[in-house]
Amino acid sequence: MAKELKNFTKRSDNYSQWYNELVVKADLAEQSAVRGCMVIKPYGYAIWEKMQQTLDKMFKETGVQNAYFPLLIPKSFLCREAEHVEGFAKECAVVTHYRLKNDPEGNGVIVDPAAKLEEELIVRPTSETIIWGTYKNWIHSWRDLPILVNQWANVMRWEMRTRMFLRTAEFLWQEGHCAHATAEESEKRTVEMINLYANFAENYMAMPVIVGVKSESERFAGALNTYTIEALMQDGKALQSGTSHNLGQNFAKAFDVTFVNKENKPELVWANSWGVSTRLMGALIMTHSDDNGLVLPPHLAPIQVVIIPIYKDEEGRKAISEKVDPLLKELKKKGISVKFDDADNKRPGFKFADYEVKGVPVRLAIGQRDLENGTAELMRRDTLEKETVAFEGIADYIESLLEDIQKNLFEKAKKYRDEMTYTVDTYDEFKEQIEKGGFILAHWDGTPETEEKIKNETKATIRCIPLDGDQTPGVCMVTGKPSARRVLFARSY
Amino acid sequence: MAKELKNFTKRSDNYSQWYNELVVKADLAEQSAVRGCMVIKPYGYAIWEKMQQTLDKMFKETGVQNAYFPLLIPKSFLCREAEHVEGFAKECAVVTHYRLKNDPEGNGVIVDPAAKLEEELIVRPTSETIIWGTYKNWIHSWRDLPILVNQWANVMRWEMRTRMFLRTAEFLWQEGHCAHATAEESEKRTVEMINLYANFAENYMAMPVIVGVKSESERFAGALNTYTIEALMQDGKALQSGTSHNLGQNFAKAFDVTFVNKENKPELVWANSWGVSTRLMGALIMTHSDDNGLVLPPHLAPIQVVIIPIYKDEEGRKAISEKVDPLLKELKKKGISVKFDDADNKRPGFKFADYEVKGVPVRLAIGQRDLENGTAELMRRDTLEKETVAFEGIADYIESLLEDIQKNLFEKAKKYRDEMTYTVDTYDEFKEQIEKGGFILAHWDGTPETEEKIKNETKATIRCIPLDGDQTPGVCMVTGKPSARRVLFARSY
Repeated sequence: MAKELKNFTKRSDNYSQWYNELVVKADLAEQSAVRGCMVIKPYGYAIWEKMQQTLDKMFKETGVQNAYFPLLIPKSFLCREAEHVEGFAKECAVVTHYRLKNDPEGNGVIVDPAAKLEEELIVRPTSETIIWGTYKNWIHSWRDLPILVNQWANVMRWEMRTRMFLRTAEFLWQEGHCAHATAEESEKRTVEMINLYANFAENYMAMPVIVGVKSESERFAGALNTYTIEALMQDGKALQSGTSHNLGQNFAKAFDVTFVNKENKPELVWANSWGVSTRLMGALIMTHSDDNGLVLPPHLAPIQVVIIPIYKDEEGRKAISEKVDPLLKELKKKGISVKFDDADNKRPGFKFADYEVKGVPVRLAIGQRDLENGTAELMRRDTLEKETVAFEGIADYIESLLEDIQKNLFEKAKKYRDEMTYTVDTYDEFKEQIEKGGFILAHWDGTPETEEKIKNETKATIRCIPLDGDQTPGVCMVTGKPSARRVLFARSY
Repeated sequence: MAKELKNFTKRSDNYSQWYNELVVKADLAEQSAVRGCMVIKPYGYAIWEKMQQTLDKMFKETGVQNAYFPLLIPKSFLCREAEHVEGFAKECAVVTHYRLKNDPEGNGVIVDPAAKLEEELIVRPTSETIIWGTYKNWIHSWRDLPILVNQWANVMRWEMRTRMFLRTAEFLWQEGHCAHATAEESEKRTVEMINLYANFAENYMAMPVIVGVKSESERFAGALNTYTIEALMQDGKALQSGTSHNLGQNFAKAFDVTFVNKENKPELVWANSWGVSTRLMGALIMTHSDDNGLVLPPHLAPIQVVIIPIYKDEEGRKAISEKVDPLLKELKKKGISVKFDDADNKRPGFKFADYEVKGVPVRLAIGQRDLENGTAELMRRDTLEKETVAFEGIADYIESLLEDIQKNLFEKAKKYRDEMTYTVDTYDEFKEQIEKGGFILAHWDGTPETEEKIKNETKATIRCIPLDGDQTPGVCMVTGKPSARRVLFARSY
């Protein structure tokens, strides 16, 4: 069993299969009976809860409040903002009826044809339309602004090809929707939120990201500007991990949301929206995990330390338990989440394998010999290094080790990302490099046509125009026309 | 404006209108553009979040873990458990298509007839079927049991008559779904959870409840037994506030979920499910609020204390602010949620009215005179009593006052409930009393026929057979046949 648990596909053999197997073996999620929808299992959900709690606290510190808007959106709402309906994928779940009835032929239930809705309802793919339809009633005067609202919700997009966490028909996310009196304030909030996401990605997920602006063709439908954080996965593909959209006055116009300004004149309201989703789980998994399973950064691990006693009989178990008890209390007091697994229906070898696959950052094993020597065997998951440590003072040691692991994971991921970031000057170089994966910084003439050509010929897209980094002008690698600065290309999820 | 805020219908004039107005004026929720669905506004959602956090902690202390299952359920799943599909309302949102397309006639978008689902999907009205369909893969051996899983989710039931929080088409809830190896263990968990709900209702919501068992006809579809907590609202009507269902082996049978027991023999798994919803918000509002607006128990109030400075000029504002600053820190250190509202775009009178309507438990007002005297004016929302208190030691005073208010609200509600609980022996008495509202304890012969007759003739239902209270046998008030004990009747929401 222990062997079977750890015995899965290697990243180098088949990265995509490695990922799929890992999600299942680490007990994170599984496919459901509903096409494209997953079940998030308790261990996977516990990680998502840690993400949620951390982000929710960060949002609230910037003045954001939570609220809840309807799941179903009238079809006509989607058409109100022209670019939005045009640009947004039309694959979505459509509710057309509101009643079932017993099948007169006795085969279970059928849809009652008499219960057809006058107007179809769409399971929200995103909530700009229903929320701006609501804000119309909330906003009258400059005194009502800003509105800084977020919702944690499920959304649905009928994706044809799905992968757990990365792209599922239903997914969980948060969507923030702010309303402001001025363009400047709205832009400031848009940038504030993408920076908040970058902070979360780097300091909690230990995942380095490039913050930038999307090119026009990659913008959110109806946005003036889309900011993004882009991370690089271990297979050299980019993963868009969070976005923040400056929506200008487009939704205010579409839903007629105006306010009376301080000069007593009506003005359209300025909007932005920003979101991250359970896709972050996929990013987290792919950034750190290895051929032995999941690797979790301590700041998001539901179990940070597991302690496994190795004993022969009840007396032995009791002796270890007595020794460990004060340690458990000490760790909990430090805010460290610890599990003492003395269940006797699984052998230590199985437990070792299980917690390794589940990515628990620190494992302690304590046996009879350790009791005698005043030691414990410690393994850190990030490097798989084992060491024998003195039991005396071990809580402090673990506390600082967890921070070391957090830091090490970030640095390791950053080193990989930096090594996999290439600067190229010719389109030939570009085509050669893109086959090997990684981020490519190259000059582009700024036109959608060139962008499209590159995409068609290489499957690479512009991930973003980075906010930082080299700002030197140059010439487009494809057309030779002037380029304002290098932009970031990659193949992506 | 201040007057307008507080100027709404009195309970004695029109209870139902008072409720509807209160929900809107206290900024808790509003009707959305989607029939029967509400928008939960930030202040209302903040109360719901406090409920969620408290319950979630209580669940986890009993070993429950959270998970997430799909929103959409294949139609055929609903038919697997015969009683479930028969008993459960068939009014639900049905997804029949998965794509929109541009209207060839240019009128926005239409449903793409080519994108019809082979099998319709139902927006979950409750998740027993999809969850037990999933548990089949999780459960093989006795070692896999128990499974103690909960999900926080949105659900949908196409109600014809809706009222905000009390009965909406979409609502938010938690649904726990446990799987056990034995009938005893499952029954124990079912009872544990209804007692947990009772504890939450009484100690956080300050709402006294009667814990009991539903009569057969009021049971959850597919359950052997449904436990309930029943509260009495100020209009004398009962509100079912939480339920816990012992589902026996019905769902295990329907989804073929078996486990190999310790004797190596296959057995069907035992199930229970339990839930509370945003309906609790309605219960909370109706239990304590008065003609001046919302009254919140301190344990669930997002803002427990509001401090309003009364000043003439910037200098005055600054002097008060300096005085209040250490108090804010002291209160926060005690874990008390406090808001210092020195916004200068609203007058103190407006703020007083606003926080009164919003039910903030304690209000402090501080003006120039107070600064000189070292005092503050304090108002407690539950009694509307004002007093002048010394600023020195005020944090300790507030801390104990909040507990006083919590206790007072519970005792007031309990006194009302007890006074409105009647013991009657004849059907004539019953019919007379039921018109005046309240709980009625009466003898019933235990048959669905008598229960139905009473319901048709009086609109009263059996709320529950209480677990505690008088167990003396008697004779049914309607048929004169033997009755095992008195049961609890009321008209209800």
